[in-house]
Amino acid sequence: MPNPTAAMCVIGDEILSGRTRDANMHYLAGQLTERGIDLKEVRVVSDDRDAIVAAVKALADGFDHVFTSGGIGPTHDDITADCVAAAFDAHIDVRDDARAILAAHYEKAGTELNEARLRMARIPDGATLIDNPVSAAPGFTIGNVHVMAGVPSIFQAMVASVLPTLTGGAPLLSVTQRIERGEGDIAGPLATLVDAYQDLSFGSYPFQKDGKFGSNIVIRGTEMAVLEEAQAKLVALFP
Amino acid sequence: MPNPTAAMCVIGDEILSGRTRDANMHYLAGQLTERGIDLKEVRVVSDDRDAIVAAVKALADGFDHVFTSGGIGPTHDDITADCVAAAFDAHIDVRDDARAILAAHYEKAGTELNEARLRMARIPDGATLIDNPVSAAPGFTIGNVHVMAGVPSIFQAMVASVLPTLTGGAPLLSVTQRIERGEGDIAGPLATLVDAYQDLSFGSYPFQKDGKFGSNIVIRGTEMAVLEEAQAKLVALFP
Repeated sequence: MPNPTAAMCVIGDEILSGRTRDANMHYLAGQLTERGIDLKEVRVVSDDRDAIVAAVKALADGFDHVFTSGGIGPTHDDITADCVAAAFDAHIDVRDDARAILAAHYEKAGTELNEARLRMARIPDGATLIDNPVSAAPGFTIGNVHVMAGVPSIFQAMVASVLPTLTGGAPLLSVTQRIERGEGDIAGPLATLVDAYQDLSFGSYPFQKDGKFGSNIVIRGTEMAVLEEAQAKLVALFP
Repeated sequence: MPNPTAAMCVIGDEILSGRTRDANMHYLAGQLTERGIDLKEVRVVSDDRDAIVAAVKALADGFDHVFTSGGIGPTHDDITADCVAAAFDAHIDVRDDARAILAAHYEKAGTELNEARLRMARIPDGATLIDNPVSAAPGFTIGNVHVMAGVPSIFQAMVASVLPTLTGGAPLLSVTQRIERGEGDIAGPLATLVDAYQDLSFGSYPFQKDGKFGSNIVIRGTEMAVLEEAQAKLVALFP
């Protein structure tokens, strides 16, 4: 049985303007690979309602799971929850269970649960909450879409809350072989190996360092013994 | 006149598996912002023909410029050039101008221009070549799509070759104000400022450091004097 598939939607003008370098994509990619869920596509979209709704709809239709990152705080530019609700034609308003979580958190902190903070209790009907052990304001899952915060520490905590609830496949394993030859020398012999191991995937990731060209050949599959056999043959091709 | 828009398509299983952290998106985002071209969307797709063709078509239809990164080397998994040609219904084969560049480069290096390396001379009919001062093998522009290498040093050199040929808009400027209060305290007063400056865009990027919450408010626009005026008012809101 093939592994479940996933996509990610990163929401944030700060990534697209080059101000911030996204960290959540790389983190989620590693976590999903370990769990045997194949991340197939990532879209980074701006803080724009139409763009977010269109991306969430397309990804929710195309993949088993969708993870969103960003845009669920209390400020005017935090529109993700409303956009995801719109993508599912779901009603959204401040929900009692989320309000109770925020109320308890801010009472303990001696902070007012003002109108802006209450925005973080806006949860679509039918969604289940995602625990946020860092700053209380929850994420949520509706349909196959998991809506999470953009702040990396909170995003990671929410991923830890969600992933154990999902059915994974066989974890994708990989071995990497560094070959210090130009890709043009590697390509021909490598192609024969690719043909011989149809169940494995081979990637060639060239590098250039100190004026020397080389490539890391990454072999991916679900059985380590087969990977190591293929790697040994690869090494033998380039003595 | 609004600024030209752009999108990026990153091709590579190595990003989606979490093996490699993409660097080209962040680089391109900064370069485009400086040039007054608004990066509106990024898609990361796997080394899969259908996925690449669909993404390139959608982005080429939706934005003024599309930049692709990755998949133009000599190995079996380098299928970007053929996919972009398919997206434009263009014929593709080894082209004499690209072959001449490769032949000169490899002759100088004393390296054989073998069948694998010749794959890098596959250029769609009607495309113009993008200079690659690092390793010779050219990128190309077809329609509004600029096809570039994934190796960061080569990607950056190709961006430097392409950007001067594009018409930019007014460079987007920004000021950042760090406010050491929770976003929930910032949101209300900030909203009044957002309403007062319709020509500016305000982003709130929360952080958590040493247990303290705060937010960087980024104000973006094209006139520094207006940005500084809005920033002064922002500071006055949070004495």
